Amino acid sequence: MTIESTITTMAKAAREAANKLARVSSEQKNAALFAIADGLEEEADFIKAENQKDLSRAEEMGLSGAMIDRLTIKDETIHAMVNGLKEVAQLNDPVGTMGPTRIRPNGLQIARMRIPLGVIGIIYESRPNVTVDAAGLCLKAGNAVILRGGSEAFYSNQALAAIIRRGLENSGLPDKSVQVVPVREREAVYALINQEAFIDLIIPRGGEGLIRSVVENSKIPVLKHYKGVCHIYVDVDADLAMAQNICFNAKVQRPGVCNAMETMLVHRSVAEAFLVDMAGRFGEAGVELRGCAETCRILPAAKKAQESDWPAEYLDLILAVKVVKDMDEALAHIAEYSSNHSEAIVTGNYERAKRFVREADSSVVLVNASTRFNDGGQLGLGAEIGISTSKLHAFGPMGVEELTTTKFVVQGNGQIRE
Amino acid sequence: MTIESTITTMAKAAREAANKLARVSSEQKNAALFAIADGLEEEADFIKAENQKDLSRAEEMGLSGAMIDRLTIKDETIHAMVNGLKEVAQLNDPVGTMGPTRIRPNGLQIARMRIPLGVIGIIYESRPNVTVDAAGLCLKAGNAVILRGGSEAFYSNQALAAIIRRGLENSGLPDKSVQVVPVREREAVYALINQEAFIDLIIPRGGEGLIRSVVENSKIPVLKHYKGVCHIYVDVDADLAMAQNICFNAKVQRPGVCNAMETMLVHRSVAEAFLVDMAGRFGEAGVELRGCAETCRILPAAKKAQESDWPAEYLDLILAVKVVKDMDEALAHIAEYSSNHSEAIVTGNYERAKRFVREADSSVVLVNASTRFNDGGQLGLGAEIGISTSKLHAFGPMGVEELTTTKFVVQGNGQIRE
Repeated sequence: MTIESTITTMAKAAREAANKLARVSSEQKNAALFAIADGLEEEADFIKAENQKDLSRAEEMGLSGAMIDRLTIKDETIHAMVNGLKEVAQLNDPVGTMGPTRIRPNGLQIARMRIPLGVIGIIYESRPNVTVDAAGLCLKAGNAVILRGGSEAFYSNQALAAIIRRGLENSGLPDKSVQVVPVREREAVYALINQEAFIDLIIPRGGEGLIRSVVENSKIPVLKHYKGVCHIYVDVDADLAMAQNICFNAKVQRPGVCNAMETMLVHRSVAEAFLVDMAGRFGEAGVELRGCAETCRILPAAKKAQESDWPAEYLDLILAVKVVKDMDEALAHIAEYSSNHSEAIVTGNYERAKRFVREADSSVVLVNASTRFNDGGQLGLGAEIGISTSKLHAFGPMGVEELTTTKFVVQGNGQIRE
Repeated sequence: MTIESTITTMAKAAREAANKLARVSSEQKNAALFAIADGLEEEADFIKAENQKDLSRAEEMGLSGAMIDRLTIKDETIHAMVNGLKEVAQLNDPVGTMGPTRIRPNGLQIARMRIPLGVIGIIYESRPNVTVDAAGLCLKAGNAVILRGGSEAFYSNQALAAIIRRGLENSGLPDKSVQVVPVREREAVYALINQEAFIDLIIPRGGEGLIRSVVENSKIPVLKHYKGVCHIYVDVDADLAMAQNICFNAKVQRPGVCNAMETMLVHRSVAEAFLVDMAGRFGEAGVELRGCAETCRILPAAKKAQESDWPAEYLDLILAVKVVKDMDEALAHIAEYSSNHSEAIVTGNYERAKRFVREADSSVVLVNASTRFNDGGQLGLGAEIGISTSKLHAFGPMGVEELTTTKFVVQGNGQIRE
């Protein structure tokens, strides 16, 4: 079979599985999640042995330490996957729930019922745990899923796929509800994103290059974010100790993630008082500062920021800093350089808090809290399948509910249109 | 300027207008809607004169009577546009409204705020009233819009655009909030659907050919429906008089629209009793029946249905009829041939009504009511911009709320991530 016909066969089978999955009870779906979790625990040695094949190949190919680290499945990795599945099982099942009912003057009762999206394709890079996490969330929402992991995790993903398949079979769900693409070649990605007859949604997770290539070539709607250039604006009325804690947390706690702060905007009236202490804390943590002229005047040790620093997503212990004359300038800077991901304000002023919330055009806007809270778990969605900075369908972190849609249900007693 | 640069300039201007529009109050938006409505009334003679240019050209080019009819702007057409705008002004403004607030264990307050989508591109065919209707709905939801009407309505659309622009200016809204493409060439459509940097959503309205071409070439998310192959299933437990009224209404009241019934499925136990009378009523109304073998046995005057009749959207007084042995067969037929638009069941049986609602995978599923109710106004959304059979973002009729999205608002008092 050619790669294209392999993928088409998988996509058709996924559509058939999805039709069945949409009608399955929450109990059956949860039983499958537990069965897969049990399988992962029982087959830990098998998983680690298959993972070792990928690791050996990765070393031969000279992959970086960071990539090998992400690729490695340890006992803790398996434990985390198992716990993740059990947590997803405990989430509410949105499928079949109905919103408020509206009664029309002619007596028709109108409501919206949550239904699965259908078939989801997920394209991702090295971490093999995504295979299990994404499968669990899609399954909970009643969707069939086709997973296409990185070629460097080929054996690991195939091993996980086999365990998932057995869990599905043992709990009576269609075994094609979760499929992992058994092809290393990149051609498989292009075949997958052109199955618009069978796949409803594509979610790419990984570097910006991967995501742009998927968006440009897909005939299927894509939910994604390219990057997170997150700003925190320290207002003239900020509690400066609070602002320090929030900015430190947003930059330093985990600098390599999309909801870390990349640019700090500081009102000029508090810049001197705030920046000197803040720079001391950042200095101890090894954060390199790249500032505007005014920042460099206050902090002579800071590097001078270039134009390329303002749109930069460093994913590292580097921070761009700009002193602004007021919130208008802060909002204008955010409007120009924002990636529509997360923006925060630290302020004690009621009107400015309200205005910032209204005007900052990002998926999560925070007042007096760290940008690191843009996360499905932290916002109370349960686990997340990713963060969308597209405005269509879902804007922000996507949990189980964002993997569903609604249809209208109309109940009558003989109404006809006049 | 080339066509592409004309469109790019428009798209950039729309993005800037959208940024301002997102912050405008409901009062200001409503004032603009009323100002445009007044302008239409005052300039009725100008509109009709410009429309006459299109009509003369249409006659020269030998357009069909139906097309000329759709193109014609009469006093009633203007009156309907004016009323439409006033009705949209009276709808609730969703922008800035917030859903329920969730409190996290760390004290963070999380809620979702409705925000405009941004810039919407609408591509449509002959009816010039769409120019005003779509502009009104997009404006109400705080979106800038670029409208690309059919070349046959060129002068009419430009005249309406001029009146809309004046209404925007007079009420202090950005005049680029509504723009009509001033180019006849089809190239303008392709330029428009590739402005992914500035446009958030494309809505094509028109024939299936237009829509498929837009979907295949657009880099921007598209909301659309290709066609409406709507089914009504007359169950063994149907009230047959009710079933007759509903089926008659769904087929005959307005056969040329997407929510008209195209296939009628009848349980075999009631087929004889139901079909004979029903065929009599349909015959009086001039409906041609194309039936399965069993239908033709009961109704010898019916034509024999071909395979091509089951997926057909006739948009005419033609109806495919199939006798089924049970609801399983009805649901299987719907699953195979449905366009995911509208499906109805007529039944007095509680369990089967529930099951049909759950399993029919269409944007509107009706019990004991005509498929003709798949309409934003009828379902209580207010006016509609179209019906989506895509599952992403909006499934079913799209009103003002479906032209918005939500962002997360997080309010804290210094929370950081542990």
